Amino acid sequence: MKKVKVCVDVMGGDEEPQVVLDGIDAALAADADIEVIAVGPEELVVPFAEKRDRVEPLVAPQVISMEDDPLKAVMSKRKSSIVVACRAVKKGAADGFFSAGATGAVTAAATAYVTPFRFMEGDERRPVRPCITTAIPNRAGGLTVLCDMGANPDVEPGDMVRFGQMGAAYSRVVCGVARPRVGLLSNGTEDTKGSHFTKSCFAPMKEQVPGFVGNCEGTDILSGSVDVVVSDGFAGNVALKATEGAAKTLMHELKGALMGSLKGKIAALLLKDQLMALKQKFSGDAKGGAILLGLKGVVLIGHGATSVEAVKNGTLATAEAVRAGLVEAVASSIEGLVE
Amino acid sequence: MKKVKVCVDVMGGDEEPQVVLDGIDAALAADADIEVIAVGPEELVVPFAEKRDRVEPLVAPQVISMEDDPLKAVMSKRKSSIVVACRAVKKGAADGFFSAGATGAVTAAATAYVTPFRFMEGDERRPVRPCITTAIPNRAGGLTVLCDMGANPDVEPGDMVRFGQMGAAYSRVVCGVARPRVGLLSNGTEDTKGSHFTKSCFAPMKEQVPGFVGNCEGTDILSGSVDVVVSDGFAGNVALKATEGAAKTLMHELKGALMGSLKGKIAALLLKDQLMALKQKFSGDAKGGAILLGLKGVVLIGHGATSVEAVKNGTLATAEAVRAGLVEAVASSIEGLVE
Repeated sequence: MKKVKVCVDVMGGDEEPQVVLDGIDAALAADADIEVIAVGPEELVVPFAEKRDRVEPLVAPQVISMEDDPLKAVMSKRKSSIVVACRAVKKGAADGFFSAGATGAVTAAATAYVTPFRFMEGDERRPVRPCITTAIPNRAGGLTVLCDMGANPDVEPGDMVRFGQMGAAYSRVVCGVARPRVGLLSNGTEDTKGSHFTKSCFAPMKEQVPGFVGNCEGTDILSGSVDVVVSDGFAGNVALKATEGAAKTLMHELKGALMGSLKGKIAALLLKDQLMALKQKFSGDAKGGAILLGLKGVVLIGHGATSVEAVKNGTLATAEAVRAGLVEAVASSIEGLVE
Repeated sequence: MKKVKVCVDVMGGDEEPQVVLDGIDAALAADADIEVIAVGPEELVVPFAEKRDRVEPLVAPQVISMEDDPLKAVMSKRKSSIVVACRAVKKGAADGFFSAGATGAVTAAATAYVTPFRFMEGDERRPVRPCITTAIPNRAGGLTVLCDMGANPDVEPGDMVRFGQMGAAYSRVVCGVARPRVGLLSNGTEDTKGSHFTKSCFAPMKEQVPGFVGNCEGTDILSGSVDVVVSDGFAGNVALKATEGAAKTLMHELKGALMGSLKGKIAALLLKDQLMALKQKFSGDAKGGAILLGLKGVVLIGHGATSVEAVKNGTLATAEAVRAGLVEAVASSIEGLVE
């Protein structure tokens, strides 16, 4: 396979850095063609790299925590692991970056340092708004791509057009859907449904987004009736978290039903493997985390609780997106691209 | 119990009218203190009423179907069951109305004929925007009230304040929560999160909605951390349908896991009752359907597929809301009420 070099944020996540280091080891073991740049404090990354062939250290003494204000932290902590890693991607020293750190901070740093593509709108040269994108397993056995999941609570119709174009590129090259069907998240499937805002997006999306199939609704996120669901970051975030909340609640209720009686406990024993698989399927992301589309580099953000498995998957998924040519596919999906 | 007279739309729903008639019989059997006004075509409602003590017929020869444009249908089909029933509520001939018909048409007819309360805003006398409200069982064993679920995709901050006030009244008198905690649906729980619109709602809601606890997110719909979730009808509809879609998908996957092996089939036999209860809990609504808050009468809209059970529950829930004094509680929750 193509050799890929991935930056991994050793300080990302809500667990001890050792969890991330173990995750890196697991990723190295799973993919012989990746190299990892471990980004973090000297005392952690230097000894870790010394003992391994395919690991380089990149020293970053500062840490951006989940509690920091994302924008302020990115501006003031220039030597944080997140900022240092984004600059390495920009310079071409790494092919991609995986962090299980704060979504807001990674998004802000990646936008500032990996930088978005630019396009012409009339006479104006404008940057693409990066959108947070995730792929979740649907009932039809495929993956539904959701974008934007929260980077941009307020957007313009042109941004929605680009979310659709970039989301379709992601569905194509990463999820393997030949001709992705792109839906506009709305409060009903009829063409006339929507808020003033989504109604103003309908015509430009119909015209400019390949595979646009019209409005879709909350139930379509997991139904498999569309491959890409486009929304502003506000409604997208609400939809994703409602989905997660419902899945969590059902698993909780199911556990209650199983543990509430002897019959249930016997059933639980019989079903152990299937229940674990079900839990696995609906926790976290099918593709290792949320990806930022619209940037000149692959940046993946681990979602949910950090674990060795999550860091491994995120690191491998970052390499997978690089190998799939995601950044190039996104670039060629944007109309009027200049840079 | 207090005698209550409920209009039931015999032509509502996607099944044969006989399903509704059987549902009425089931409701009459379950509650000795309700009377039903069966609203529909003469050939159905007159013979049905003749054979029953506590049923009156109300003849409505026209039908509004799920395919009709709601507003146009309500204006042109003045003798439809939906319009005729709403006028009966307005006149005081009935205490409430239950329909399993099209949400849009029932909302439009109820707004036009049952009519909303009015309040003073500065020098202006304005009608309350009715909001579609539903209560769903949460993980904490209580009920979360969601409003608005789709009547108003675009609203003003003042509307959101009233949704919060009215939703809290519903939580109090129908769900039995003494001091409902009211959350503003957003893309994060921090005070600074939100779209431009929800940010503009935060301060007025904090000031005017009793029990306001700040922003909540999609996961809070089923977590039980708030009792009332307030949003515009666009985001609310997305959140509700995403929740329903996730629940449906998980039940589907669970069924697959159970039926995929012999062990699973044995487990399914052991768990039969619990699985039915789980399915029951997350299908449809805890309170018989979606209720329209802000109107001078109780109007309930059946949600999901029509069945004898659903019509029975909807009819009983309509009577329950009347007995609980919902309309009066909503009226007294609205600031500046004049009528």
